[in-house]
Amino acid sequence: MNFLEERIARDGIVKEGNVLKVDSFLNHQMDIELFEQMGAEFARRFAGEQITKILTIEASGIGIACIAARYFGVPVVFAKKSQSINLDGEMYTVEVESFTHKNKNHVIVAKKFLAADDSVLIIDDFLANGCALRGLIEIVRAAGARVAGIGIAVEKGFQPGGRIIREMGYHLESLAIIDAMDAESGAITFR
Amino acid sequence: MNFLEERIARDGIVKEGNVLKVDSFLNHQMDIELFEQMGAEFARRFAGEQITKILTIEASGIGIACIAARYFGVPVVFAKKSQSINLDGEMYTVEVESFTHKNKNHVIVAKKFLAADDSVLIIDDFLANGCALRGLIEIVRAAGARVAGIGIAVEKGFQPGGRIIREMGYHLESLAIIDAMDAESGAITFR
Repeated sequence: MNFLEERIARDGIVKEGNVLKVDSFLNHQMDIELFEQMGAEFARRFAGEQITKILTIEASGIGIACIAARYFGVPVVFAKKSQSINLDGEMYTVEVESFTHKNKNHVIVAKKFLAADDSVLIIDDFLANGCALRGLIEIVRAAGARVAGIGIAVEKGFQPGGRIIREMGYHLESLAIIDAMDAESGAITFR
Repeated sequence: MNFLEERIARDGIVKEGNVLKVDSFLNHQMDIELFEQMGAEFARRFAGEQITKILTIEASGIGIACIAARYFGVPVVFAKKSQSINLDGEMYTVEVESFTHKNKNHVIVAKKFLAADDSVLIIDDFLANGCALRGLIEIVRAAGARVAGIGIAVEKGFQPGGRIIREMGYHLESLAIIDAMDAESGAITFR
């Protein structure tokens, strides 16, 4: 097990319905020393890529992206979520469906913050069905920019997002991939 | 002018209705080197305080808080905003009004992440009327914890939030305080 898998095994809580609570260190309370380790590991895994910008999505991706950005020396852009459609021509807007919350959201990025010569590393905390992530990819492509890589903290390997994104040909690195969880015993199986 | 005031003077855009756009470096695209300077400055200004935790609020406070946390060696907790009331007994929930968006939100923090012996530094990107900030203060007090200080990036000095918070006796440090802005000329007057 790597450092993140160890932390998930120790402090993650498995709930009914394939829910993994990691709010004590990842997405409500945030362990910044852990984020530093994650940033260093992303830098190692994407060492071959010339990254010019990190793109993430509010809210829980922001902390991980900002700490990781220190290892790449690039700015971070966070996409905003809104239930309302933004018809402002200065924005890239993509509609994404949330399987978790059973609703639709618009993912929005100001056009001026993504240029055609950008080489973008997308970072987020969770990958399950990959809806939000596909929205971010669509926005990078709409800008004519390149997705240089995708860095995820926790991938739910038993949901289809990771497979779909890899089959699309993207360089996806998840620091922890969970293949199975059992709410009764609390057991977590990593890939 | 300090480093943040210089940056606001250079890249901030004044819009009608006392709106200051700093989305190219602070709250949509985020300049992490600038955040490092801000973190170091917060550490200098709160050097006398024994901080155990940083509390911020989603979404645009998170990046600043996470980078600042490196200078204090403490975890960050971000409060969540929700339009719906959360009656879960495991959460602190405070209703706050947004003057900007003309709506009401609930600010929510899980009880387990604030303890009575915590000495909390509250960090946020903007202070105008101080509604969100007073919500965060209320949550810290509900936990029986201490507000050790409040660090703000940009304070709109012509709105009452800063004055109210200082009159309440809190140690409030705003890295840039704007006393006046003029949309026509683009001029910004710092305190």
